[in-house]
Amino acid sequence: MSSMWGNVVRIQIFGESHGGGIGVVMDGMPSGEAIDLDELQAFMARRAPGQGAYSTARKEADAPEILSGLLDGHTTGAPLAALIRNADTRSKDYSAMRWLPRPGHADYTAEVRYNGAQDTRGGGHFSGRLTAPLCVAGGIAKQILARHGIFVGAHLLSVGSVWECEYNHIGLTADELLKAGKNAFPVLDEEAGRRMLEEIETARTIGDSVGGRIEAAAIGVPAGWGDPMFGGVENRIASLMFGIPAIRGIEFGYGMGAAELRGSEHNDAFITDENGNICTKTNNHGGILGGITSGMPIIVKVSVKPTPSIVKEQDTVNMQTHENAKLSVPGRHDPCIAPRAVPVVEAALAIALLDLWMEFK
Amino acid sequence: MSSMWGNVVRIQIFGESHGGGIGVVMDGMPSGEAIDLDELQAFMARRAPGQGAYSTARKEADAPEILSGLLDGHTTGAPLAALIRNADTRSKDYSAMRWLPRPGHADYTAEVRYNGAQDTRGGGHFSGRLTAPLCVAGGIAKQILARHGIFVGAHLLSVGSVWECEYNHIGLTADELLKAGKNAFPVLDEEAGRRMLEEIETARTIGDSVGGRIEAAAIGVPAGWGDPMFGGVENRIASLMFGIPAIRGIEFGYGMGAAELRGSEHNDAFITDENGNICTKTNNHGGILGGITSGMPIIVKVSVKPTPSIVKEQDTVNMQTHENAKLSVPGRHDPCIAPRAVPVVEAALAIALLDLWMEFK
Amino acid sequence: MSSMWGNVVRIQIFGESHGGGIGVVMDGMPSGEAIDLDELQAFMARRAPGQGAYSTARKEADAPEILSGLLDGHTTGAPLAALIRNADTRSKDYSAMRWLPRPGHADYTAEVRYNGAQDTRGGGHFSGRLTAPLCVAGGIAKQILARHGIFVGAHLLSVGSVWECEYNHIGLTADELLKAGKNAFPVLDEEAGRRMLEEIETARTIGDSVGGRIEAAAIGVPAGWGDPMFGGVENRIASLMFGIPAIRGIEFGYGMGAAELRGSEHNDAFITDENGNICTKTNNHGGILGGITSGMPIIVKVSVKPTPSIVKEQDTVNMQTHENAKLSVPGRHDPCIAPRAVPVVEAALAIALLDLWMEFK
Amino acid sequence: MSSMWGNVVRIQIFGESHGGGIGVVMDGMPSGEAIDLDELQAFMARRAPGQGAYSTARKEADAPEILSGLLDGHTTGAPLAALIRNADTRSKDYSAMRWLPRPGHADYTAEVRYNGAQDTRGGGHFSGRLTAPLCVAGGIAKQILARHGIFVGAHLLSVGSVWECEYNHIGLTADELLKAGKNAFPVLDEEAGRRMLEEIETARTIGDSVGGRIEAAAIGVPAGWGDPMFGGVENRIASLMFGIPAIRGIEFGYGMGAAELRGSEHNDAFITDENGNICTKTNNHGGILGGITSGMPIIVKVSVKPTPSIVKEQDTVNMQTHENAKLSVPGRHDPCIAPRAVPVVEAALAIALLDLWMEFK
Repeated sequence: MSSMWGNVVRIQIFGESHGGGIGVVMDGMPSGEAIDLDELQAFMARRAPGQGAYSTARKEADAPEILSGLLDGHTTGAPLAALIRNADTRSKDYSAMRWLPRPGHADYTAEVRYNGAQDTRGGGHFSGRLTAPLCVAGGIAKQILARHGIFVGAHLLSVGSVWECEYNHIGLTADELLKAGKNAFPVLDEEAGRRMLEEIETARTIGDSVGGRIEAAAIGVPAGWGDPMFGGVENRIASLMFGIPAIRGIEFGYGMGAAELRGSEHNDAFITDENGNICTKTNNHGGILGGITSGMPIIVKVSVKPTPSIVKEQDTVNMQTHENAKLSVPGRHDPCIAPRAVPVVEAALAIALLDLWMEFK
Repeated sequence: MSSMWGNVVRIQIFGESHGGGIGVVMDGMPSGEAIDLDELQAFMARRAPGQGAYSTARKEADAPEILSGLLDGHTTGAPLAALIRNADTRSKDYSAMRWLPRPGHADYTAEVRYNGAQDTRGGGHFSGRLTAPLCVAGGIAKQILARHGIFVGAHLLSVGSVWECEYNHIGLTADELLKAGKNAFPVLDEEAGRRMLEEIETARTIGDSVGGRIEAAAIGVPAGWGDPMFGGVENRIASLMFGIPAIRGIEFGYGMGAAELRGSEHNDAFITDENGNICTKTNNHGGILGGITSGMPIIVKVSVKPTPSIVKEQDTVNMQTHENAKLSVPGRHDPCIAPRAVPVVEAALAIALLDLWMEFK
Repeated sequence: MSSMWGNVVRIQIFGESHGGGIGVVMDGMPSGEAIDLDELQAFMARRAPGQGAYSTARKEADAPEILSGLLDGHTTGAPLAALIRNADTRSKDYSAMRWLPRPGHADYTAEVRYNGAQDTRGGGHFSGRLTAPLCVAGGIAKQILARHGIFVGAHLLSVGSVWECEYNHIGLTADELLKAGKNAFPVLDEEAGRRMLEEIETARTIGDSVGGRIEAAAIGVPAGWGDPMFGGVENRIASLMFGIPAIRGIEFGYGMGAAELRGSEHNDAFITDENGNICTKTNNHGGILGGITSGMPIIVKVSVKPTPSIVKEQDTVNMQTHENAKLSVPGRHDPCIAPRAVPVVEAALAIALLDLWMEFK
Repeated sequence: MSSMWGNVVRIQIFGESHGGGIGVVMDGMPSGEAIDLDELQAFMARRAPGQGAYSTARKEADAPEILSGLLDGHTTGAPLAALIRNADTRSKDYSAMRWLPRPGHADYTAEVRYNGAQDTRGGGHFSGRLTAPLCVAGGIAKQILARHGIFVGAHLLSVGSVWECEYNHIGLTADELLKAGKNAFPVLDEEAGRRMLEEIETARTIGDSVGGRIEAAAIGVPAGWGDPMFGGVENRIASLMFGIPAIRGIEFGYGMGAAELRGSEHNDAFITDENGNICTKTNNHGGILGGITSGMPIIVKVSVKPTPSIVKEQDTVNMQTHENAKLSVPGRHDPCIAPRAVPVVEAALAIALLDLWMEFK
């Protein structure tokens, strides 16, 4: 387990925020699949920092070097390894806080788990920066899936109290699915996006942060993929998604709110579509029944907690002396992680689906 | 994957609702641990049907026979296998519906996945009955953990629109944690329980069903268990929980609602307790930071959808003819699954923690 | 790991020699495959004890009860569980030796590993009896593979100093491959078999035992199955074969002796066969190159050590007192395990190939 | 599986012979372990080519860059990634043979497996060069184990018909165990080494190659490590060793020859040593009984086939035209791989033991 995930396509993520580099190895890849590195770079750019008011000022090129598994623009089938060098790191930002665990971060738990040997600079292996190699893997997965008719997209569903429409409430065409990814701010509705940015700016100005929700979906996944019980599609996606720092919950289809519905409201009636195929009228089940895909769009929503690093003063404890202390985290931190997490969630869903595709295609 | 789960302690669940029997094999067990079979049976009884108005009339003894791995009341360290025979099954209840997939069930997806060879009687391998062996494994895990100071409990947090208090809002002692499990109806607050039962009865009388939420917790888990990224405690628990049919979402600590909070509200300040140990003032993080336990109570909440089998007529499609059809599911079905799912969720959490215990103790 | 094996088709073996029962769960099975239980029973009979002078007098029906995963004679795709009840056990044969570890057995290592909690009766989970559920899984795998044109067979290659011909020295047709399995004594050459039986009888009369070698093969496996490095076909087969007690070594194709050859002798030249397909003139590579199948017969040979339980007096140590002791193992033990291990090795090869078939078909 | 191996410590190897680089990621590492990079480099040098008459003239620095998981000379516990850049590659050596599969190589099987997309330059991912990252992982494992009292060594047991003494025939002290690794030619007995070199030179002069055997051992492993059946120490080691190209067989302790012995000859009697500890008089079992360590030295022997790339003309088939062809492999190839494979086998054993150490320490 640890920083490895997958059944057939296995990804292994490595690296620390301020070390020699971060990267990913993708094992069990299909061979002969074309990968467009410019398209991959464009996808990576959606996650990159320094994009606007809501994002840290740290500049990262995040250009992955493909070390193996790719020849003449096509996968060879051997493990595909990608490396991103670290640069523009300010380690001294962190040294002052070596013994002061930041609330909401892994500083304290990592100290106990690794007995002080962990790389604490910039959050080390726990840094949000480690989502960059996840995006490399996801960007590659997205390209392969798209060529085979499976499209994966995501959008920012909410920031604080500002929400926009869910995928299930629009006709989920490929255009609608991929729309948010093409916008500077990853929303479907421009006006909602404007208000979300205001919410973020408000938090920033008071030295605070704010959380948000992300909805991802996939269309083109045929019925019959997945396994019962622990090999279900939800199990697989969830076990991957919680690898993204700051995710606090995950729900499928109609989601947690299903608990408040009647069976007659939540059940999706089966019908035959214009092509004679069996599908459902509604999609409260989010494309998965009994752990197995139904052919309807896969719908998954996650909740991203507010950035734990805030300027506002917080209480903490010195891990050496066990004395109470005060902490204000300066550094360069997004007042809201959720917008930049949109492509990361999209990447995770694409990786889970590539793994399934290899198993069930 | 499929019906197997675990890292060190691996459980393999087998069986179909109306076949020869259902059961579980637990591999990687610790040796020399005492298991009290009466206590196990008492735990199983909490999940058993036929308990009241909210539960199916089907009688199941659900007495597991331990086939191996247990000698003179102690684990031998070899795989522990338990078998529950099937009985009191009315297969003819289902044959009429062979080609009419029930909305909200795995009937259609299983048909595609297994190409018609699946056992359709009583939901086959997808039946809620398969949670009985999960409870065997969980009941055993609970006993071992308790002897080592780790206690696992759960309660019914809501049914429809009726809620009771969350664990984080009470001082979570072992007594409070285990209280709901001792009640006939698995709640902390009797009055809330009474209103939940009314909600269930209302649904039943109109041939409908209703969903609910379950909160589980564990106390006594030390800081430092778990791995970063995909080996995190959330990832492990989630990948197991979604093996329980009808779970639509999972959240940790404060949960999905974290997205609506500010960082200053959601962050849990570190303090030193009376014994000089580092802990947090609040527990919005649910005992897990960066995938690793913090020593605070583990808090996990899941949402259970309304029972999909309802008497109310629904639209479906004949899988052979692809013609539209109407369906009313008679049979003996709980109008609300959530109460009986409480020990199942508790079992799943205990299994995940036993696996972690073996890895990190 | 432990008593679980497999990538797609995962087998989980449970049970102890004198407990409630032994069995196997096969997860990840294909659905809709016909299984003939009489044919399975006939395969099991090849391994059963009590067959002649070379075999223990303990009678075992070894009739597996299929608990799940099989409906109307076809696999459902759900985990297939099989149970064999234990019977005719004489536990008191063993109690006298509780603290005297038998040389060549796992008594001492199990004592250390499980801290005395292991079931010591009849070797417990380490008993050769646990190869019965392996044969259930293998017998099922053989049937499925045969229907798809892949045939698996094995024969007794040697007993002590008596050898018979290797598969690579005969034209390996299905008839030749399956011939030994149809004989009362599992050899290709009747005369060699007669001399092997003499070798076994000689060992028995002096209260001693003797080892042997087994060769297994598969034909009909297409080129292109398997993965590089650790996912190679040799790695997979070896990791399964060493689960059979008493196996001391494994070799593929020409085997260990390749070390004594020149490259020009060991290399298999490529040629085009009468159908225009690429194959090799010789098969020193045993059907596997770079971990991937070549389309030539898979050839694997294992060495089985002499039965460690012998009547002859041996030196041992009392595990409680650490005092020297003498031991003569009475009980009912085969003077040579190898003949009965032939179907077990065949079963293991079939399981490994079923797993590969599910992955690469 | 594929190019990933391990239970707790998982290694993921990537790279192709002529690509951007090769490397390894080690997941699940212990934290706080000192790693001496000079010592690692010295270990790597034992495998490096260009050492003498028996080795290819290709120069490789093979200096690994540690990208992550190491800080101030100590493991952080996060995945440890190491990269070795490729250099001095002569791709044109290979292009002429694109369609002519070399006998004894994976050229043909890889063509079928990857449908022509594989990197064929220098053997791609199947190249013996991929044993360099295995040595990085193994060299690191050796250092950690040695600090905890476990020593791993190996020597060249034979080349063609020239043999030297087995470890079991000498008193296996740490000095004897590590001696061969310190010699320019990895043998215990200088005279035997001289004759092995002659054997190699003879093969080289006639444009041919020769095979050899390697014996590896470990001392200091306590009793009680490992699992029954498929989690046995032999299973683990074998599943890793066959990841080394050219390995044709593996045997433990006395090895394959056990089949020719009587039980009274092969059984190792238990005795109490001078410290009152239980051990065995002889070590035919190679330190493993029932898959679990006995506290005696672990002994494993492998057979390495003769280098398949030979100057001597061989028959092959053009994979495009299916016409017969002749092939002489020029290039720079060792006439005997076995000497350089000695540290690789040592590395593999160390990796398997580090994984066990993490699980059972």
